[in-house]
Amino acid sequence: MELFPGERLDDLNRRGYKIIQNPKKFCFGVDAAFLAWFADIAPGEQAADLGTGTGVIPLLMDARNACGTYVGLEIMPDMAAMAARSVALNHAEDHIRIVQGDLREASALLGRGVFDVVTSNPPYMPANRGLTNPDPEKAAARHEILCTLDDVVRESARLLKPRGRFYLVHRPARLPGILERMSAYGLGPARLCFIHPFADKEASLVLVSAVKGGHDILKTEAPVVIYERPGVYTEQLLSIYNEEKSGENAEKSGNAY
Amino acid sequence: MELFPGERLDDLNRRGYKIIQNPKKFCFGVDAAFLAWFADIAPGEQAADLGTGTGVIPLLMDARNACGTYVGLEIMPDMAAMAARSVALNHAEDHIRIVQGDLREASALLGRGVFDVVTSNPPYMPANRGLTNPDPEKAAARHEILCTLDDVVRESARLLKPRGRFYLVHRPARLPGILERMSAYGLGPARLCFIHPFADKEASLVLVSAVKGGHDILKTEAPVVIYERPGVYTEQLLSIYNEEKSGENAEKSGNAY
Repeated sequence: MELFPGERLDDLNRRGYKIIQNPKKFCFGVDAAFLAWFADIAPGEQAADLGTGTGVIPLLMDARNACGTYVGLEIMPDMAAMAARSVALNHAEDHIRIVQGDLREASALLGRGVFDVVTSNPPYMPANRGLTNPDPEKAAARHEILCTLDDVVRESARLLKPRGRFYLVHRPARLPGILERMSAYGLGPARLCFIHPFADKEASLVLVSAVKGGHDILKTEAPVVIYERPGVYTEQLLSIYNEEKSGENAEKSGNAY
Repeated sequence: MELFPGERLDDLNRRGYKIIQNPKKFCFGVDAAFLAWFADIAPGEQAADLGTGTGVIPLLMDARNACGTYVGLEIMPDMAAMAARSVALNHAEDHIRIVQGDLREASALLGRGVFDVVTSNPPYMPANRGLTNPDPEKAAARHEILCTLDDVVRESARLLKPRGRFYLVHRPARLPGILERMSAYGLGPARLCFIHPFADKEASLVLVSAVKGGHDILKTEAPVVIYERPGVYTEQLLSIYNEEKSGENAEKSGNAY
């Protein structure tokens, strides 16, 4: 496998899976690892990842539990091509398909009501808030330039079958808007999980799951704490990275969502 | 101070404050202690507590930081009378006033736009859900028989001045509805804090603050964990009970909300 200038090959630490990344463009962060840990997919299920970037979510999920088909939708042609090369590198073409296209038209491109699972790690910042990165790929990953929260939730709801599951990672500050949009598009929130950098600090990320047409009792799961002390990860974080599911998670995997 | 049959006198562990409770009717739980810890009130501010029951929230708040005036509204005549006796017992009549009346008419009874702070520990369960306690006071404290979540949020919004603060304790499962009603009545959510019985278990309570007319960035604060292991409280919980504010809380108290 030939790498283009600026690219590097990183190990995903699961079943030998690797991923091509370009640090000048965008490298996946803890957010993607948390989302892949939080989301459940059963063998043979159909899944879609909206704004897949390097394809990290489908790759992490497929490495854990061979997917039926995982479609990764990415608007940036170079990024989509790089993701497709990562899929080929892992010989995962039978499980993962990268589609270059616009998230805002996801249901028109990929079909309505056909997916068991949709995942998304969308841009967190409203388009007009804060400094926008001069690199268009970095900017689009961080700011809602090419898609808004409304686009992500609407298209996810359309893609899903009844009782299909939606998994999202976002900033806790956006939670009211996320829940409001989910309600508007018929997605019933099922699980929340907050990520805190330290046990005594405010949350930096939230994981949200929802069920299409669901009216489940919303659970707020045990929080995830990243650092025991500065520079030292918690046992919990290491187990998430190493995918050794704890008792709590083993239970969780037995759930319908 | 004479106690009626079935009543007992409990210590609030703050400035020698005591409270009359009747275990056959309703005794305050950890929920009230958490709400009083979470809520901020500055000396001289005007506050209201909706569905005050035994008056525990005004008593705990006043014991910490002498209130301007704290009005506790309670619909049950016997309960309101008992709360008033607790206020007298602590010689807090200058700070706390118990009003017997219907929460659904709170703003008509107490005035619109006149309060800096509203607190509420309302019933958690929809009226038709689960077993209803045969005792009407216990039933009303647990089930939405005499007031709904909508009543609580609507009347709180009406009672508050612009930028006035609302503090609520509820079940995490109700969070989407809480945020939705707050949005409907012009209360901007400001802080969330989840309470977990154990570090690896789902949240059992959520504390929510909101600002009237506010558009603050919603913060999800460090979670509270009750038990270190079965039967042994965490240091964090003991400090909440003993009101020794930690560094995180000391910062919090410096906030406008």
